[in-house]
Amino acid sequence: MTLFTGLSAFPLTPVDDAGRLVPDLLQRFLDRIVGAGADSIGLLGSTGAYAYLSPEARKRTLRAAVEVVAGRTPLVVGVGALTTAEAESLARDAREGGADGLLLAPMSYQPLSDEEVFRHFEAVAGAGGLPLCIYNNPTTTKFTFGTDLIARLSEVPNIAAVKMPLPADGDFTGEVLRLRGITPKGFAVGYSGDWGAKEALFAGGACWFSVVAGLLPGPAVALTRAVQSGDIDTAERLDRAFGPVWSLFREFGSFRVMFSIAEILGLGSLRPPRPILPLAERDLDRVAQALDRLLDEA
Amino acid sequence: MTLFTGLSAFPLTPVDDAGRLVPDLLQRFLDRIVGAGADSIGLLGSTGAYAYLSPEARKRTLRAAVEVVAGRTPLVVGVGALTTAEAESLARDAREGGADGLLLAPMSYQPLSDEEVFRHFEAVAGAGGLPLCIYNNPTTTKFTFGTDLIARLSEVPNIAAVKMPLPADGDFTGEVLRLRGITPKGFAVGYSGDWGAKEALFAGGACWFSVVAGLLPGPAVALTRAVQSGDIDTAERLDRAFGPVWSLFREFGSFRVMFSIAEILGLGSLRPPRPILPLAERDLDRVAQALDRLLDEA
Repeated sequence: MTLFTGLSAFPLTPVDDAGRLVPDLLQRFLDRIVGAGADSIGLLGSTGAYAYLSPEARKRTLRAAVEVVAGRTPLVVGVGALTTAEAESLARDAREGGADGLLLAPMSYQPLSDEEVFRHFEAVAGAGGLPLCIYNNPTTTKFTFGTDLIARLSEVPNIAAVKMPLPADGDFTGEVLRLRGITPKGFAVGYSGDWGAKEALFAGGACWFSVVAGLLPGPAVALTRAVQSGDIDTAERLDRAFGPVWSLFREFGSFRVMFSIAEILGLGSLRPPRPILPLAERDLDRVAQALDRLLDEA
Repeated sequence: MTLFTGLSAFPLTPVDDAGRLVPDLLQRFLDRIVGAGADSIGLLGSTGAYAYLSPEARKRTLRAAVEVVAGRTPLVVGVGALTTAEAESLARDAREGGADGLLLAPMSYQPLSDEEVFRHFEAVAGAGGLPLCIYNNPTTTKFTFGTDLIARLSEVPNIAAVKMPLPADGDFTGEVLRLRGITPKGFAVGYSGDWGAKEALFAGGACWFSVVAGLLPGPAVALTRAVQSGDIDTAERLDRAFGPVWSLFREFGSFRVMFSIAEILGLGSLRPPRPILPLAERDLDRVAQALDRLLDEA
């Protein structure tokens, strides 16, 4: 079972200027991810712009994805929404559409209490009937999961994993041990925040939920395998090669930078959904240089 | 012009268990607001659950509202959305549906830059073609407007007002003077946060954007008029009478408490949209006592 272990790659969801999915471009992204040997695909994650897409567009995205990845790489689908009713409906859509697992972030408008988030997750996990990963992403959802709530949710049927942000205090090992101690055996504790991935995996994190692997799956798989095989030198070298990309992710937000990477790699001239702005022209050179260095050294 | 001055009352948007608008109940709320003499209505504000409703439900809500308030009380309509395209479309819907003004909060998923918020507001103000109020609500949107951005936005055609949260340092007078100093003559600086309304109005705030006035418009109008006429004693007495309601708003969030107020006043047994939970049974008594005191003393 590699649904929430190893490398999970998060593709962009390519849409045209009218907001319509470009299915063949999505399928091209997915083919590259499958071909590179990623362990799973995180469709319609934050990188996949799920928060900005209609339920209908999300269905279409899943349909296009299943066409190319079914039977090849497990597919995890983001089903977050501002209301429980909509998230339940998206979870049912995802199961019926062929998803293997679900990813759920507690999107919020009115700030949510722990009890509200618990009941929301319980309801959506029940409606989906698939292994579900808690998406702990305080930057976008403005909700932070305490360990008590993660422990409680880990006992709910279907809830199988958590996708954590990088620990603020940098203590990966301590956090992984703490979370493992309060969750059932088999519950997966993984990490997002690409610049901390090497450290998270070395500390025993089960999964790297990776933005960059959506467009650069080869080097991301190589880094993951290096850590998994205990090849510290190669892991260090690859992480250093990614360094300028990590710097750009931290400076501009990985979501914005990914659109520039797609453009520079010749994979499509896409724009983020407004109000999100693309990088300024003057910053594109830095992205190009970061990619040159990565592709030279990786 | 009373669109963004005096008392703006924000009704709940009543929906049934299946999420469908209950138009006659909305119209009852609106009749009470109009009858009490509020200066404007803030339809589909945060209290009106705009963030949780589909564009179609928002259109129906406006249609039902216009039926009872057109020509009686100016109608300001919330048009916030996570994408600029959807907010533009909602702004056009609102104008075509008979709104007199717009209210726009910078809803976010990916955190937004000042430039992104500026362009979003410029686009929506252009699409709507109606006087627009900047909805500065960091608690729900997680975006905080700096004074520079407010100054810049106040020069954009159609942008006519700002709805501010209560100043963290309690310096209402200083903030009102500062904002007036950097915005054009006629640009309205109003406040939300009901427990600070008396102070905000005394400090020269142009408008009280009021949650409580959605269900208790009588006492809210009385408080507004007392301040406007300089009757400090009456204003102090009414603000004290509201005191227990303010405490509940601060403890549970005004959105959750409003559903209990509707129930206790016999105006309908409504529930907030999941994941938001209603108050626990044990807290309903406190709401009833707060209302008793208010209606006794106001």
